[in-house]
Amino acid sequence: MFKAELNNSNILKTSFDAISSIVDEVQIQTDSEGMRLDALDRSHITFVHLELKASLFDEFICDEPEKINIDTDEFMKVLKRAKSNDRVLLTLDEGNLIVTFEGEATRTFKIRLIDMEYDSPVPPQLEHPVKIEVPFALLKDSINDIDIFSDKIALSVDSDNFVASADGEFGDASIEYIHGEKIDTEVRSSFSLEKIREMLKADKFSDIAEIRLGNDLPLTLSLEMVTGDGKLSFLLAPRLESDD
Amino acid sequence: MFKAELNNSNILKTSFDAISSIVDEVQIQTDSEGMRLDALDRSHITFVHLELKASLFDEFICDEPEKINIDTDEFMKVLKRAKSNDRVLLTLDEGNLIVTFEGEATRTFKIRLIDMEYDSPVPPQLEHPVKIEVPFALLKDSINDIDIFSDKIALSVDSDNFVASADGEFGDASIEYIHGEKIDTEVRSSFSLEKIREMLKADKFSDIAEIRLGNDLPLTLSLEMVTGDGKLSFLLAPRLESDD
Amino acid sequence: MFKAELNNSNILKTSFDAISSIVDEVQIQTDSEGMRLDALDRSHITFVHLELKASLFDEFICDEPEKINIDTDEFMKVLKRAKSNDRVLLTLDEGNLIVTFEGEATRTFKIRLIDMEYDSPVPPQLEHPVKIEVPFALLKDSINDIDIFSDKIALSVDSDNFVASADGEFGDASIEYIHGEKIDTEVRSSFSLEKIREMLKADKFSDIAEIRLGNDLPLTLSLEMVTGDGKLSFLLAPRLESDD
Repeated sequence: MFKAELNNSNILKTSFDAISSIVDEVQIQTDSEGMRLDALDRSHITFVHLELKASLFDEFICDEPEKINIDTDEFMKVLKRAKSNDRVLLTLDEGNLIVTFEGEATRTFKIRLIDMEYDSPVPPQLEHPVKIEVPFALLKDSINDIDIFSDKIALSVDSDNFVASADGEFGDASIEYIHGEKIDTEVRSSFSLEKIREMLKADKFSDIAEIRLGNDLPLTLSLEMVTGDGKLSFLLAPRLESDD
Repeated sequence: MFKAELNNSNILKTSFDAISSIVDEVQIQTDSEGMRLDALDRSHITFVHLELKASLFDEFICDEPEKINIDTDEFMKVLKRAKSNDRVLLTLDEGNLIVTFEGEATRTFKIRLIDMEYDSPVPPQLEHPVKIEVPFALLKDSINDIDIFSDKIALSVDSDNFVASADGEFGDASIEYIHGEKIDTEVRSSFSLEKIREMLKADKFSDIAEIRLGNDLPLTLSLEMVTGDGKLSFLLAPRLESDD
Repeated sequence: MFKAELNNSNILKTSFDAISSIVDEVQIQTDSEGMRLDALDRSHITFVHLELKASLFDEFICDEPEKINIDTDEFMKVLKRAKSNDRVLLTLDEGNLIVTFEGEATRTFKIRLIDMEYDSPVPPQLEHPVKIEVPFALLKDSINDIDIFSDKIALSVDSDNFVASADGEFGDASIEYIHGEKIDTEVRSSFSLEKIREMLKADKFSDIAEIRLGNDLPLTLSLEMVTGDGKLSFLLAPRLESDD
C-alpha cells in the first residue's frame, strides 16, 4: 500500500515544473523513507535528482518499495490544477497514480502508469573546487539579462565575485555578485542558457541555491528545503568554449 | 423612445461575453417591462435566454416595443471598453444602437443595427428529474480539470453528490461535490466541454448556478441575480455516449 | 569622459519604449547640459524629440560633446531589465554604450555603438491655432475606444470640447472631453491610429499631454516632466481625409 498526503502542493508543483521540462518520463521510487527519483535527459546533458522524505508529508505509508513510472507532462498538467489551500493525496491502484485534491469539492485524477524498463541513472562523482551559495532570484535574473545578447552563459567565481556573463553579436552582459565566502581559486565554465532556464523553474523549492563549479566541469545546482525534508539537485554538462 | 441607464456595466459585459461566444447575431426585444433575448446557436446545440427587468436599471424608458438586432461581437467589443465606474446609457437612433459611457470623458459608440428576419426561437419544455444548486466557481474549475484529459464532460447526480468526470486516453478526472439536497434518483448526461466553457463566461452574473439534469437530456444552467432583476439561462443538448 | 547616473530607470524606459517603436536607430547627443535626440521615422510621418537635462541626473559628467549612435531595440531590451530600485549608470568606452544597474548584484550591459552618418533632423516650425492640455490616460483610452471601429482617428477641438472620433463600417466611436480652456476657433485633423499608439507608449513621462492642433496640420504632442528636467515631444503628420 502506498499513500502520501500533503497539505500543500507547492513543492510537488515547483519540482515537476522543472523536471517535466527536462525529461518526458520518469520513475519515482518510493519506500518507507520517502520518495525519490533520478533522471537523465535524452541528450545526456542534464541529470536531475529529487528526494522527498517521509517526514515532509502529513501522512506517509509505503509498506513495500514501489516504482511509479509516469509521463511528467501529464503529471504536471494535473498538479497545476491544485489550489493553494487544497490537500493533496497520492495513492496507487492497478496501473494508475491517483492524485486527489481535497477542498470545496473532491477532485480525483487518475494518471495511467507507463510500462517501461528503467535503469535508474547514477550521476558521476565530481570533485568541484568551488562551492558557493547564491540567491535563487539572482540566478533567474541573470538568465533573463544574458538572454538579451546570447544563448550561452559563462559562470565564473573568483575570491570575491560570482559572475554570470555573455558576449553577443550586438552587446555583452555581465552580472557580478559579491559572494562573501572564502575562496582562493578561480573557476569558469560555460553552459547552455536554455538548459539552465529549465532547472530554474524550481523556484519555490528554496530561496538559496548551492552552486558547485569547476573549470569546464559540470555545474551542480542544489536546492534544499529549509526543514531538511526535501532536496532537488541538478547536474548540467558544460558547453565547449572556443578560444577566440 | 428607448433609453436605459445603468451605473454599472458588469451585468451587460458578463452576459454578452457568454452570448457573443455562442451566437453571432441576436435580437434584443425591449418594452416597458425590460429587455430580453432568446437565441439559438447555428448548430442548434445551445439555447440562450437573457432577461433584464426595467427595475434593474437606474432609468428605463421604452414607450413602444422595439427589436434591436445586433452583431454580438461588435456589441461586446464596445462593452469591454466600459470602466468599472462608468455610467452606461443605451439609446436608439435611426439604424444604430448608441452606447454611451460617462466618466471623466463622455464616450459614445454607435453600433449599426443589422437588417435581419428573426423568429425568436422557443426553447423545448423539459421535465428534468433533478435540480440542484452548484457554486459557479466550482463549475469553472471542473471544466479546467476535465480539460486535461478529455474534450467531453459527464455530469451526474445521485443522492449525495454532483459529479463531473471524464475518461481520457492518458488518464481520468473526476470532481465530486456534496450537493446537500434531497434527491432520490440518479441521472447522468454527457456534454461538449467547449460548449460548457462558452456558457461559463457569464461568471459575474451570479455566484450560484442552478442546474437541471436528466438521463441524456439537455442541461439547463440558470443564473439569477440576487436582486431578482435579471436572469440568464442556457439549455445545452447532450452528447451521445457509446456504451463501451 | 561621459557618465550619467540616475536612481530610477522609469524615464529612460518609458521614453525609449515609444522611441524604439518609431525609429530603429538614433543618435543621442550629449554635452555638459544634458542629453537630447531628434529623430524622424523612415516614412517621414513621425518626428520625435527627447531632452533630458543634466539636472535630472544624480550625477552628470560630460567633458566634451559626444554622439552616441545606437540601435533603439537593443537599448530597450537592456532598459527593460532594470528593476524599480536599481540605480542606472550610463558610460561610454571604445565603441560601446555601457549600461550598469546596481542593486543586489551589479549588472553590466555593453551595447555596441552603430557606425552611421547622421544628420540630426530639424522639425518644421508650425503655428498651431489651438493648444490644450489633456490627461495622458484619456488619450490612451481614446485610442483603444477608436480601435474597435477604425484604424484612423479624427482629433478636433472647439470652444468647449476636445473630441476624438472615428466612423467605421460597423459603427462609430466618439470621445468628448471638456477641456476647460479659452478657445475661440475650431480645428480638426485626422491621424493614423497606429502612429498615435506608438507615441502613447511614453505614458510614465507625464500625466498631462500638451496637444497642438490645426486644420489638416501635424499634431504636436508634448510631455514635460513636472520638475522641468525633461521633455519628450512628437510631431505627427496628418492623414488626408476624403470628402465623402
